[in-house]
Amino acid sequence: MAGNSFGQLFKITTFGESHGAALGVVVDGVPPNIPLKEKDIQEQLDRRKPGQSSVTTPRKESDQVEILSGVFEGKTTGTSLAMVIYNHNQKSEDYSELKNIFRPGHADYTYLKKYGIYDYRGSGRASGRETACRVAAGAIAKKILAQKGIVLAAYTLSVGDVAAQKIDASVIERNPVRAPDMEAAKRMMKRIEGAKKEGDSIGGVIEAVVKKCPAGLGDPVFDKLEATIAHALMSIGGIRGIEIGKGFAAAKMKGSEHNDRFYATSDNIQTHTNHAGGISGGISNGNDIVVRVAVKPTSSIAKPQETIDKNKKKVTLAIKGRHDPCLCPRIVPVVEAMLAITIVDHLFIQKALYHE
Amino acid sequence: MAGNSFGQLFKITTFGESHGAALGVVVDGVPPNIPLKEKDIQEQLDRRKPGQSSVTTPRKESDQVEILSGVFEGKTTGTSLAMVIYNHNQKSEDYSELKNIFRPGHADYTYLKKYGIYDYRGSGRASGRETACRVAAGAIAKKILAQKGIVLAAYTLSVGDVAAQKIDASVIERNPVRAPDMEAAKRMMKRIEGAKKEGDSIGGVIEAVVKKCPAGLGDPVFDKLEATIAHALMSIGGIRGIEIGKGFAAAKMKGSEHNDRFYATSDNIQTHTNHAGGISGGISNGNDIVVRVAVKPTSSIAKPQETIDKNKKKVTLAIKGRHDPCLCPRIVPVVEAMLAITIVDHLFIQKALYHE
Amino acid sequence: MAGNSFGQLFKITTFGESHGAALGVVVDGVPPNIPLKEKDIQEQLDRRKPGQSSVTTPRKESDQVEILSGVFEGKTTGTSLAMVIYNHNQKSEDYSELKNIFRPGHADYTYLKKYGIYDYRGSGRASGRETACRVAAGAIAKKILAQKGIVLAAYTLSVGDVAAQKIDASVIERNPVRAPDMEAAKRMMKRIEGAKKEGDSIGGVIEAVVKKCPAGLGDPVFDKLEATIAHALMSIGGIRGIEIGKGFAAAKMKGSEHNDRFYATSDNIQTHTNHAGGISGGISNGNDIVVRVAVKPTSSIAKPQETIDKNKKKVTLAIKGRHDPCLCPRIVPVVEAMLAITIVDHLFIQKALYHE
Amino acid sequence: MAGNSFGQLFKITTFGESHGAALGVVVDGVPPNIPLKEKDIQEQLDRRKPGQSSVTTPRKESDQVEILSGVFEGKTTGTSLAMVIYNHNQKSEDYSELKNIFRPGHADYTYLKKYGIYDYRGSGRASGRETACRVAAGAIAKKILAQKGIVLAAYTLSVGDVAAQKIDASVIERNPVRAPDMEAAKRMMKRIEGAKKEGDSIGGVIEAVVKKCPAGLGDPVFDKLEATIAHALMSIGGIRGIEIGKGFAAAKMKGSEHNDRFYATSDNIQTHTNHAGGISGGISNGNDIVVRVAVKPTSSIAKPQETIDKNKKKVTLAIKGRHDPCLCPRIVPVVEAMLAITIVDHLFIQKALYHE
Repeated sequence: MAGNSFGQLFKITTFGESHGAALGVVVDGVPPNIPLKEKDIQEQLDRRKPGQSSVTTPRKESDQVEILSGVFEGKTTGTSLAMVIYNHNQKSEDYSELKNIFRPGHADYTYLKKYGIYDYRGSGRASGRETACRVAAGAIAKKILAQKGIVLAAYTLSVGDVAAQKIDASVIERNPVRAPDMEAAKRMMKRIEGAKKEGDSIGGVIEAVVKKCPAGLGDPVFDKLEATIAHALMSIGGIRGIEIGKGFAAAKMKGSEHNDRFYATSDNIQTHTNHAGGISGGISNGNDIVVRVAVKPTSSIAKPQETIDKNKKKVTLAIKGRHDPCLCPRIVPVVEAMLAITIVDHLFIQKALYHE
Repeated sequence: MAGNSFGQLFKITTFGESHGAALGVVVDGVPPNIPLKEKDIQEQLDRRKPGQSSVTTPRKESDQVEILSGVFEGKTTGTSLAMVIYNHNQKSEDYSELKNIFRPGHADYTYLKKYGIYDYRGSGRASGRETACRVAAGAIAKKILAQKGIVLAAYTLSVGDVAAQKIDASVIERNPVRAPDMEAAKRMMKRIEGAKKEGDSIGGVIEAVVKKCPAGLGDPVFDKLEATIAHALMSIGGIRGIEIGKGFAAAKMKGSEHNDRFYATSDNIQTHTNHAGGISGGISNGNDIVVRVAVKPTSSIAKPQETIDKNKKKVTLAIKGRHDPCLCPRIVPVVEAMLAITIVDHLFIQKALYHE
Repeated sequence: MAGNSFGQLFKITTFGESHGAALGVVVDGVPPNIPLKEKDIQEQLDRRKPGQSSVTTPRKESDQVEILSGVFEGKTTGTSLAMVIYNHNQKSEDYSELKNIFRPGHADYTYLKKYGIYDYRGSGRASGRETACRVAAGAIAKKILAQKGIVLAAYTLSVGDVAAQKIDASVIERNPVRAPDMEAAKRMMKRIEGAKKEGDSIGGVIEAVVKKCPAGLGDPVFDKLEATIAHALMSIGGIRGIEIGKGFAAAKMKGSEHNDRFYATSDNIQTHTNHAGGISGGISNGNDIVVRVAVKPTSSIAKPQETIDKNKKKVTLAIKGRHDPCLCPRIVPVVEAMLAITIVDHLFIQKALYHE
Repeated sequence: MAGNSFGQLFKITTFGESHGAALGVVVDGVPPNIPLKEKDIQEQLDRRKPGQSSVTTPRKESDQVEILSGVFEGKTTGTSLAMVIYNHNQKSEDYSELKNIFRPGHADYTYLKKYGIYDYRGSGRASGRETACRVAAGAIAKKILAQKGIVLAAYTLSVGDVAAQKIDASVIERNPVRAPDMEAAKRMMKRIEGAKKEGDSIGGVIEAVVKKCPAGLGDPVFDKLEATIAHALMSIGGIRGIEIGKGFAAAKMKGSEHNDRFYATSDNIQTHTNHAGGISGGISNGNDIVVRVAVKPTSSIAKPQETIDKNKKKVTLAIKGRHDPCLCPRIVPVVEAMLAITIVDHLFIQKALYHE
């Protein structure tokens, strides 16, 4: 209810502030007997950690994960699986001068209005740092999906007005922006570095695709697959929009254009197009699930901004911290994690009620 | 879990198929002592019902609501409030020839894959008719919001490529497309009638605004206000995308442009812009909450479409039923209902935990 | 949250007051393709309905169930299944003189304190009449259990100080008290009739047994099988205690006596005793699940009682309505229903997460 | 769903095995601005820890709690509050010889049937050690109750056939069995020491009382206050029964005896008796809430027991570990914790929906 849990049968509960003692996640509903090592988790965390390139923050956070429960002799036991990441390199003093200032684009003001108190160090619970817990839990979800042959990937589709021109999955992890197009990646890099030089930041779009997802996932009415995916992805800080399949472009189409028509092959039923993005009537139809999210430009910028403090006094703020000039490269693994968690949850719900 | 409930403290559970005996909704968490009549509900249902104009389906569904419980001597009792709408005018025979056909854009195929059985008459549980229950429950939510001075409205922002040029709330209910701009409304009408003549349909965009929503609603991390709103709105059939504030446009902006800067007035703290759409860090900030959804073109069209039946045989389908050539006018009240339900739920959660 | 739902994957949501328009239940999580008729439900409702014998209330409530959704061409569809029971013979005027009186043992006072309003006619939502909805939903749960070979029965173990001396399942439905011992049943009848003549009522104990329940149901820690069974059964009005296996007698035993020792047969692992009542560490062990509940004497009695009204004025109350002199015979099917719902829910949870 | 969470608005999620790296709990729904120190938690944990007296296990577990999140500058922030207890003194090797044996009264067999794998060291997740997390979370709940003037205490009412003859709350924490009667406490001690000498164990009954609980808590139908209390307490390992007010004794009473009759004082409405144990119609009535639980004798005993191993081979088991000869003294704080958590949860639900 307080918003720290996600999922129903595969459920994660996270805790931790940016500059507190530790962050962590409890994963409930992990089936027993899955081989699991800390290394499996760490690999995914390393994709999210800061300091990976010139277009991510140079902050040092080692983000070492420790499994506290739910694994015995290298295998999951089916009981609650907790993981913790201690905060070692956080310098709280960096934030003392921000203590009373409402930073534009940040949650300082709303947390104060909501709670009457907030941990101002590095945004506290509102920090993007909480997504490390999503990625840790997502690593388990991805393992479960892999066992079932389901393939999932996200990538940076555009940065500012620079868009990928093709989707080549093999290059995503080979460029710092995680774009699926090496040529576009270079131009995206330039765009980000340009913003950085100006003490500014830039937004972008991330696309994610789930391949070989079985038909039948998602529940009618309120838990349509696109609805829970939207909940999952819009809960990531900085995401301002989401669309499935043709998305907002569908609003300009006619029914005769948008409808995906069925045809039969010798062993399957398929559609000529995939405008629906793999989901019909809220239920996966066996096509690729295709989803895009809009990522806002990072709120923390070096450029001076006029704002006020708690006493309503005007101040000019130039944020000195080392921040990501573009959030996309580090949000890619978070999008994958949340999508994987959502799909696994639906798989288990479907298994419970309908598959004999 | 089976997807028929939405909300936590203010929770709705719906049931019913398009051509079954009845549709209905159980509303849990209605505070006691609120004056409530069937007329309060009926007014909202009448906004959604078919046959309102030349741009909605001419089908006749009287959609008379009956309150079965939870109201005593004209006031709510705080116990579960059930409402039912009997299906009187449904002609099941109309659908017998569609029985074995996978209609493009519809859920026939996915329901069959999921359940191994489905009620093919008028799309059964997958019918847009289920949204009548959302509207009925939403009427109660709206009443609660009105008591607190919170104002909420949705309208058709665009149809195909015809967009409203201004937002005049006073005209929304005075034109059949529910546009906030009378001039644009006329052009939208033409666009819809044009599609209808061709036996086709057309998509659009709906925008919703919540005014005077108190700051502090929404929960950090997974139940950010935009995440639960996205869940609520993406669960409406035909919605393919959602965005908050600047939405996808934010992906092309710089931080220095997108950040809403604070300033103080004698009695308040405000921002110069509202690019965030009223939500910062997942929590309402007191500004207008602004959200847009993409509505796909209606799947049921008269124009002949090639598809297949359950036996994989090719068939040409020309849907004869009387269907909405554009979903927007009738989805507007559904968007309002889901948004109202979501805001009320967050109000109660906030009341439970934080406000003394 | 408002207490009108029970279960997780197999979930019921009920509504309705004793003298309102109707009572009903929405059952979520019914697997598709189960043959289901109103007759299947009605049979169970008829076991609960009033007027069955001299030891139940002679009130007439036909309790005819109507299925509103979730069944198509005689089979469940997997979507939400709603059932409604209209209140036809309720005479509200009977209750006008009780309107302002706090009846001893009843919920009038607490409902008023909680809600500031309540439907005083026949106890409104607090009426035992709500259990009809549990029995209706339980009929579906029982059908699912029967498909899996799981057998479940409850019976009146004692009335006042008259206890059954043997458990003969074949006679339970052949005597009005639903005792598993025909001799004891006669003495129980006398005890109940004796209380009735005095204008009084009497309590009793109901025992329930689940046979052939697979090992492995129940979840560690908070959702131990006995914990969810306790929740289910203690939620029935009038139940004041519950015990599993040896129950309160275990509090006087030594470990060497209470421990069930294992032995192996050629094809199975068994225990010499079943003191644990079929549940070890919160998880079913394959033995019979044995549970008992204490049923209080009916609160509504004809004997004059001193009490007060809303204005704190002393009144002498002699309740004229026709009430059950002992609740046990009619609660037996309710206990079965709640137990069946609980077991089905655990079966589905187990299926989702652990069985491959 | 996997049973590691309890509560709705005030919700706890626990993790950890007896001999794993650590145990812990995430508490969700803690209001902000409550002063909280680790010492507040530790005090309650120390009441549960082993090695307190001759009648508890002499095992050494320091059970030092560490708060990882949700507290900033000495006050709660309203965000998820995590606490961890590292396992320092666990000797896993002690359990290697129990590895393949099904210990009578334990969960080894059922965990194996459920999961196909289990951590056999010290019962893993099924260990009573998990209750440390309940006590840690309960310490926060108690603090919230204390702020509202609600007083809660549990005590050992009987051990075997030795029962307390009076209830003197002031002596509970002054004798090792936590009995409310010093004379009875001495006889209880003897009974426990007698069982211990025989290599055996003994059961008992714990009673808990909540004083000054406001009327109006609990929800009709499925979440009656006694139902959620029963769920809470029956989920504690070793509890075999629960009763409210007169409990099983009510089964032998007449309505005219059991009904609590109302009378009015100048400033209040009261009842002459409290047979209902403070709960009418599932809702607290302002009287003391009185509940009793049956505690089974400890399953781990030194006395040799015949059982089998995983290969169905007969073995004679004499458990060498140092175990509590009676669970009551150490379960008393666990009962208090679970009861406090349940009451706080209902307080918040009531605040959300009904109190203006």
